This record gives sequence, C-alpha cells and structure tokens, in this order.
Amino acid sequence: MRIGILGTGVVGKTLGTKLAKLGNDVKMGSRKAGGEKAKTWVKGTSGKSSEGTFAEAAAHGEMVFNCTAGMASLDALYAAGAKNLEGKTLVDVSNPLDFSRGMPPTFSVPNTDSLAEQIQRAFPAAHVVKSLNTVTAAVMVDPSIIPGVHDMFVSGNDAKAKAQVIDLLKTGFGWKEVIDLGDIKGARAQEMWLALWARLYMKFQTPNVNVHVAR
Amino acid sequence: MRIGILGTGVVGKTLGTKLAKLGNDVKMGSRKAGGEKAKTWVKGTSGKSSEGTFAEAAAHGEMVFNCTAGMASLDALYAAGAKNLEGKTLVDVSNPLDFSRGMPPTFSVPNTDSLAEQIQRAFPAAHVVKSLNTVTAAVMVDPSIIPGVHDMFVSGNDAKAKAQVIDLLKTGFGWKEVIDLGDIKGARAQEMWLALWARLYMKFQTPNVNVHVAR
Repeated sequence: MRIGILGTGVVGKTLGTKLAKLGNDVKMGSRKAGGEKAKTWVKGTSGKSSEGTFAEAAAHGEMVFNCTAGMASLDALYAAGAKNLEGKTLVDVSNPLDFSRGMPPTFSVPNTDSLAEQIQRAFPAAHVVKSLNTVTAAVMVDPSIIPGVHDMFVSGNDAKAKAQVIDLLKTGFGWKEVIDLGDIKGARAQEMWLALWARLYMKFQTPNVNVHVAR
Repeated sequence: MRIGILGTGVVGKTLGTKLAKLGNDVKMGSRKAGGEKAKTWVKGTSGKSSEGTFAEAAAHGEMVFNCTAGMASLDALYAAGAKNLEGKTLVDVSNPLDFSRGMPPTFSVPNTDSLAEQIQRAFPAAHVVKSLNTVTAAVMVDPSIIPGVHDMFVSGNDAKAKAQVIDLLKTGFGWKEVIDLGDIKGARAQEMWLALWARLYMKFQTPNVNVHVAR
C-alpha cells in the first residue's frame, strides 16, 4: 500500500521504517522537502521509500499517518492539504502535549475536546482514526518490548477506516488486543491517558509502560 | 482506628462498611445529621458505627475519607472545617466529574490542576492522599471482583500519610500493587484516567474495569 507519513521525528521514522519493512511504499513528509533527517531516513530504509513535502506525502498515501508534534499538527495538515486527505484513512498518532510548563507536560486540548476531534472537524472528508498515541514509538511497532498483555486503542467515526487500522495493528505490528473506543470522541480518553503515562514514565524512568485493561 | 467518612453515597457507604468490618470506629458524615441514608447505614453496620454532620465525622476521625461528589467536595470540606482536618490523613476518593453535558462526563478541574490539589491548597494542614478514585466502589474494597492483576495509585505530599494509606489498601482492602505517583500533582493523572475509565464502562457495559500498568 502507498503510505504517507507526516513528520520526520522519532515517531514518523519508526512507523515509516516498520511500514516499509512490511512491504509498503512509504513517502515521508516534512515542512520542506530534501531535509537531512528525511534524506537520511530514505537512504537507510528498504524498498522504494521516498521523501517530500507534507502535501506530497499526503497525496502519495492511500493511508496517511499524522506523526507531527501535537501543537503543530493542524498547521502541518493544512500544509498537507484537505484535497490530499479526502476519503483517506488519516491515523492520528499525535498528542496535544504542551511542554512549556516543564515536565510532565500539560495538554493544549483536554477534556471537552481533543486534537483528533479538531483534526476531524478541520478535515471532514478525511477518515480520522486515533491510535498509537498511547505508547512510545518503539512499542507502537513492537508491542513485545513490554512484557505481558497490554492493549492498544482506536477511535473514529468511520467503521471501514477503523477496521483497516485494526488490521494493520494486529497483523502488521503484532498487537494482540485492540480496543475500539467508539467514535472520535474516544480520542479524549486516549489523549488524556498521557497524563498517567507521563507520570509513570517519570516514576519508572522508562518510556516502556502501557496500559492493560483488566475486566 | 477512628475514621470519618464524608459523604453517604455508594462510595461512602461501601468504604464505611468495609472499614467497620475491619474493626475501625467509623462515623459517617453528611450535610445534615440524622438523614435516612446515614441512619439506615448505621443500623446495618457492625461495631460501634455512628453518623453525624460533616464536622462531627471529621472531628471523630484520625483518618478522614472524602467520598462526596467531586463538584461538591470543597463545600463539604469547608463544612467539615479546617481545624477538624489539621494534621490528619485526608484520603481524597472524589472525582471532579461534571455530568451536565451528559455521558461520558467531562471534568470540572482538568489538566493544569486537580481536585486533590485544590483540596490540599484549601486545607494546607491536612495530609491529602489521592487514591481509590480510579475504580468503582465495590472494587475499591475488593479488588478480586476484577480478575487478573490490576493496580491502585496513590499520590500526596506527606510520606507518612501515604504509607498509612498504602498499608490500608494492601492489608485492609487486598490491593496487591499500589503505585506511588509522587506528590499531589499525581492526582491529575489519577483524575484524568477517568476519561478512559468512563469510555471503557460505556463499551463493556460494566463498571468493573481497571488499569494494569504493563512495564
């Protein structure tokens, strides 16, 4: 499948590398094409990986991942262009974390709204699926890094887009339990979980923590 | 031990009943003494349980539990009186949930503050420990209701008060894993977790859900 990745940070590169390994045709997008990070990534990656602008990566993808920093996500998506996201599954991996007050971060969008809902409202023709934002990048594509049973979440308004993401999470990334939290408002829960995640990270001094839902 | 419980709802009654069974001398406090709910509870409870006003229950307790509805907690604690809470462990079980927008509830205090921090600021001589707010009442006092391993959290500024609560949680209520999230700011994480809890409740149609931290 052709996949567009928006954002060349650790999350974008980790997802891009794994998706390329799985045989996908991945284009990495950044604000300006030809940046060092993106070029280095292309060189080190298998298959016909490429890089370009946000708009080029979004146009390329049949499925698009938003891996930009939360507070820059809407701007990055506007640069990607509504037309290039139309009818596509847009996996929102970002978190609305505001580091300006120090650690742990606070949220730029909490409680009665979420970043994923903002994105869905701004791009109504895209099928936004919130997922993967609840764990650190390495764990996203290899859940076995954390021992024992632990879970991934999805939420979104479009059933087909969610099913596509769940299939990728399970068969591509190896997630055993993926919990569907319903419509895109479920993203509030996925994003606000980060408050506990950040506190656990500080306590255990490792980003390799995740939630298992006992019931 | 003498224990004061503020609030005669399901949480207060469930904790009061269990604490009485464990041999404690429990006084249940409500806005007005002599209410039907409190009187019925006293009749049905072992030991020398009693009821009275918020102030009487707080004065009675060597340890006090805030089991009032989150949006009424500060008022209830003002009625209990700062003097009656001075130097005591005040276990804050409440959640700042606002049901006025329907289900799932939103938060009256999220993100850069928490209800527990508000309480600690309003009553600086009390040793506030946030705990038990992350599960439904029945599970608070009997974690085995939910199968498998799952965890309880505490946060608070006073190490002795936290140790006292952790001991009660483990030896009294049967919690196997109690994670100390640090100072009272950890309450933000404990309170915001409720967004995910509420969504899981709606999905699985049971309040018997809790988190296990995989790491």
